This record gives sequence, C-alpha cells and structure tokens, in this order.
Amino acid sequence: MSSIFTRIIKGEIPCYKIAESENCLAFLDINPLVKGHTLIVPKKEVDYLFDLEDELYVDLFLFAKKVSHAIKNTIPCLRIAVVVIGTEVPHAHIHLIPLNHMGDVNFSNPKLKLHTEEFQNIAKEISSVII
Amino acid sequence: MSSIFTRIIKGEIPCYKIAESENCLAFLDINPLVKGHTLIVPKKEVDYLFDLEDELYVDLFLFAKKVSHAIKNTIPCLRIAVVVIGTEVPHAHIHLIPLNHMGDVNFSNPKLKLHTEEFQNIAKEISSVII
Repeated sequence: MSSIFTRIIKGEIPCYKIAESENCLAFLDINPLVKGHTLIVPKKEVDYLFDLEDELYVDLFLFAKKVSHAIKNTIPCLRIAVVVIGTEVPHAHIHLIPLNHMGDVNFSNPKLKLHTEEFQNIAKEISSVII
Repeated sequence: MSSIFTRIIKGEIPCYKIAESENCLAFLDINPLVKGHTLIVPKKEVDYLFDLEDELYVDLFLFAKKVSHAIKNTIPCLRIAVVVIGTEVPHAHIHLIPLNHMGDVNFSNPKLKLHTEEFQNIAKEISSVII
C-alpha cells in the first residue's frame, strides 16, 4: 500500500502544489498550523528521514531551502521553522512553518480551517516566487 | 557580542560535547525535552538557518544525520525528530530530539532536570558510537 504522499506524487490524490524537482515535491499541508505551512517530501517512499541516502537527503534539504525563501517572501513571518517528526505518515517529510511566535510550532495547536480557494491562492502566490 | 553558541565553540563556556567536525559542533541541550536532546550548530555565527551558504548548510545537515544515528543507537526511542525554530538564540541550530511520542516535540513541555554526571554520561555514550 502506497503512502498518502506517494499517491499525491503520482497524482492519484490532488494537492496544492508549490514546487517540484526531479526527486522532491512541495505542497501545502491541508491541516496547517498557520498559513503557508508546507510539506517537502522525497518522491522515493522512505519512512525515516535519516534512512535516506546522502544524495537524496541533501537534495531534499536544498529543495526545502529554496522553497523556504519563497514562503518567507510571500507569507508575513519572522522566519521559516523546520520540523521533522514523522510519526503520522510513514514517508519522510519536512514541515516548513512560517513563524511569528515560538508557540506557532506546536502540533497540538488547533489547525487552521481554510477554504479551497484560500489554499489555491496561497499555493499560487508561493509558487510564483520560487527561484 | 558573540552568541552563546560561539562562546561554547570557542571554549569560553563549557558544554557536554557529542561530536565536532571542521565546521560544526554537536552538544547536549542543557534544557532538554528528553534525554539525549542534542543541538547541532555551524561554527560560523549565522542567525537564520536558511541564510547559510549551500555548502555549509549541506555540511550541517550531513553532520546532523551522522549524529542522529549515534543518538538513536544510544537512547531508547522510535526515531530522532528534527526541529529548527531559532527565535531563542541568534545562531542557527538544529534540535535533534529522541522521540517516543509525537508530544515529545513540544517546547512548552517542562524541561528535564539532569545532574552534571547524567549529562556527562549521556554525552559520553552518544559520542562513543559516532561513526
């Protein structure tokens, strides 16, 4: 059984896509802690981040860096926080979270409810400034 | 004024050191969320993680990967979580946090109180299995 992220990567499940490279995909978290909360995943389905071979691991973090700049240039925030927990979906993923307060990075906080159109607009804005 | 991490790197302030490379240092967080909570810092004082030049940024994350394996082989845990917030100290740092429950990654949780000897033993055990 493919992970939900593999199904997103294959296009079987839709996502609010931010950016794509040969080996990685960035899309909005649909249960965001804050606006612009983005997930970065390798296309290869590997559960644990630190099990990725070095080349893909480096590729993933360089891709995350590029996306982080686009988020920061779009969403009003102090900086972009990075979180990798990985107990929810068995497919390595980096959370990029626009941060205004340290408490923004707390996964027990209530999730934002956004309409489809809001997600679409955020994804469009961020993806339009990816360099 | 140097950051507290620069002062640790220079040896002006002691730390429970785990590992050191040419450009990076790993040491125990003295306000740990759980046992084995480790900080990874570049020796160069740069405030925001995503402002690091690519070479040092990659170096830092590869160093974190190596240290994560040593922590996982030492501290009983499911996996090692990664968190970069960075609002506390203006010197980029990666938190590596041994994870048993998703709730372990919550910086509003009370911090563990450990004795000097416990910190020393944990640091010694982790550093002894660094490959």
